Amino acid sequence: MDSSTRTRIAILGSGFGAFSFLKQLDPEAFDVVLISPRNHFLFTPLLPSTTVGTIEFRSIIEPVRTAQPNIRFYLAECEGIDPAGSAIHCKGSLDGRRFSLPYDTLLVAVGAENNTYGIPGVEKYALFLKEIADARTIRQRIIACFEEACAPGLAEDERARLLHFVIVGGGPTGIEFAAELNDFLKDLRRSYTTVINDVRITLLEASDAILHVFDQKLREYTAQRFHRKRIKVRTASRVKEIRERDILLQNGESLPYGLVLWSTGIGPRPLVRALPFAKDRAGRLLTDEYLRVKGTSHVFAIGDCAIIEGKAFPATAQVAQREGLYLARTLNRRARGRPEKPFQYVHMGMLAYIGGHRALADFRGVQSKGFGAWIFWRSAYITKLVSFKNKLLVIFDWLKTAIFGRDISRF
Amino acid sequence: MDSSTRTRIAILGSGFGAFSFLKQLDPEAFDVVLISPRNHFLFTPLLPSTTVGTIEFRSIIEPVRTAQPNIRFYLAECEGIDPAGSAIHCKGSLDGRRFSLPYDTLLVAVGAENNTYGIPGVEKYALFLKEIADARTIRQRIIACFEEACAPGLAEDERARLLHFVIVGGGPTGIEFAAELNDFLKDLRRSYTTVINDVRITLLEASDAILHVFDQKLREYTAQRFHRKRIKVRTASRVKEIRERDILLQNGESLPYGLVLWSTGIGPRPLVRALPFAKDRAGRLLTDEYLRVKGTSHVFAIGDCAIIEGKAFPATAQVAQREGLYLARTLNRRARGRPEKPFQYVHMGMLAYIGGHRALADFRGVQSKGFGAWIFWRSAYITKLVSFKNKLLVIFDWLKTAIFGRDISRF
Repeated sequence: MDSSTRTRIAILGSGFGAFSFLKQLDPEAFDVVLISPRNHFLFTPLLPSTTVGTIEFRSIIEPVRTAQPNIRFYLAECEGIDPAGSAIHCKGSLDGRRFSLPYDTLLVAVGAENNTYGIPGVEKYALFLKEIADARTIRQRIIACFEEACAPGLAEDERARLLHFVIVGGGPTGIEFAAELNDFLKDLRRSYTTVINDVRITLLEASDAILHVFDQKLREYTAQRFHRKRIKVRTASRVKEIRERDILLQNGESLPYGLVLWSTGIGPRPLVRALPFAKDRAGRLLTDEYLRVKGTSHVFAIGDCAIIEGKAFPATAQVAQREGLYLARTLNRRARGRPEKPFQYVHMGMLAYIGGHRALADFRGVQSKGFGAWIFWRSAYITKLVSFKNKLLVIFDWLKTAIFGRDISRF
Repeated sequence: MDSSTRTRIAILGSGFGAFSFLKQLDPEAFDVVLISPRNHFLFTPLLPSTTVGTIEFRSIIEPVRTAQPNIRFYLAECEGIDPAGSAIHCKGSLDGRRFSLPYDTLLVAVGAENNTYGIPGVEKYALFLKEIADARTIRQRIIACFEEACAPGLAEDERARLLHFVIVGGGPTGIEFAAELNDFLKDLRRSYTTVINDVRITLLEASDAILHVFDQKLREYTAQRFHRKRIKVRTASRVKEIRERDILLQNGESLPYGLVLWSTGIGPRPLVRALPFAKDRAGRLLTDEYLRVKGTSHVFAIGDCAIIEGKAFPATAQVAQREGLYLARTLNRRARGRPEKPFQYVHMGMLAYIGGHRALADFRGVQSKGFGAWIFWRSAYITKLVSFKNKLLVIFDWLKTAIFGRDISRF
């Protein structure tokens, strides 16, 4: 088809929703432009593994341009949508230049951002874990804490502070980071013999339990494993403020830290907050069962930035991916004049790595834990990785880590 | 031996000289402390390959602590040496804290820094290529130039500017970077179809010829190959100033650029400049044939920061490595009361990659060029890499690049 007659689709985002949509969409039938401040897809479920080098950064990313060469891609952020004029207003991520683009159909799949709940100091002092750059910062910071702790003539309490790693938030990201960090200690032990025993890992959770999406038994198992590894889990611990060198809890206690990871939950991005569409109380765009934003005719929204009215899907990669696939298929069908069916979500399961070759799996209602679940965890993610290249690289990284351990170079 | 009776050796640096010294030194006989602002050794001959992802960053580094666990390592910079008091004064690279350390024997192997020759704008706008962090910056900048060049509505001359990659300095580093960058274009072509033909690579050399350490025939061959690849080599071109968006030549010409790499040569580091020892006109520490700094009894200097009086060794990894090995063996022998022999340097040869599976080799006086020389170049570096892990990783990287091409993700 001629490009002038093809439907112009603008996609905002490059995460699970946008990327699965893009891969599934028939490039012959549509004229596609994708706008994202990042030129690659990131397989976030394995992101915690990259913070300590179990897996390398480039092994879990896939460039948007390589995945679908026949589209236009702009490294930019969408600042506003004009539904009446069918146009989006964007700002280049590198040069800050502003430009507008017309669309016939728009897909909003921008995801969400870290929620700081307005707690002072979080933005300034805590580290997040959403992008590869975050993982790199964490990796650099961990090594920096160890190197600083080795400096000659350092006071004992300062060394203890530097080697206190605190995670705020007991969801899957926080748990998996704690697990990976603890695994990393094995590799650090050989090189930082004089200080390794001063290391402490603390996980703060505001509610009564960690991993509340998982079954009670799996939660208790995780708490036990963490206890044996001396990862201190503190539930019902609310953070009041994060300062340069310590965390102030609601109960008045001060926890000096070397690194603090903030992984408490997500909230709407500025673009979504500013959009004049219907939203739920969490600030997500409300859509119908065809993933169309309420009150619009050609705007769709999927993933963490949206919710089907009346449904309560979890904010996971799985949901975003299914929605992206569904929507691409629906649009492909529509282009051929075929009928549309509403979106159905079948929850496959949940996985979490908890360290020391142990994982949790809750798959189609069957729970398992331990070494077998870890093998399943690895197999499932290798299967899920979006390209043959990624699969091969991750397998090689795992082999490399098993043979040589993790690198401790800081650069 | 008890640590209190062992000779205390302080090593400044973690490059070829320091690292080969460290690996060869008998850890039983000496009490070793190593001070460097970087906690790893870097195999610099393959650094140009990492700027475009032919090889990954972590494949050519080896942590100092992993290489020799029985030493103390401080991530710090030496700010001054007190030969009378046998002490060094250091500053922590992370926290900036100052501390002093005593020594019985001192090895100065701090290398050199990029020489800007006082040309305005070089520090501010040009990129260098000495450390992994430099290579990462270059890689990010290359992709940024391509992404910016794709922005909608960009003026033609601005696109041309962004895609003009300039290298100043026709030595091995500049040549190899130009070669790698040109190889990278093959991978970029698929993803940046609309702008790829606007790319230009220019190499500026102040003297009359590039690669003047190589034989005339090999130089001409390189110039021919570069010409065929449309890498523009401009000899007798001196830079007067680098500005934010263009390079001003001595002849008054202005060259707009997207990225400029500065690789014109090296000069002494501030520490070496400040040392009260005898130096040559290039600011290098003068040593005797046993690599002992002139006028001192227990201070040695090797690599790019030193020169044996009356000799003219090239400033290469090869020389630094041989000196490190020699010195460690000499000190090991001396600890056992064995006699010492002066340092002898036997030049093995030179290698340079010139792109498109072609290299130059000048080995024991036998010159070769082309594909065979490239196979030799790869074999030689695999042999030279300092650990089994590095060898395996580099081979895997080469395979990966051959199969999948280079990654174009920016993060």
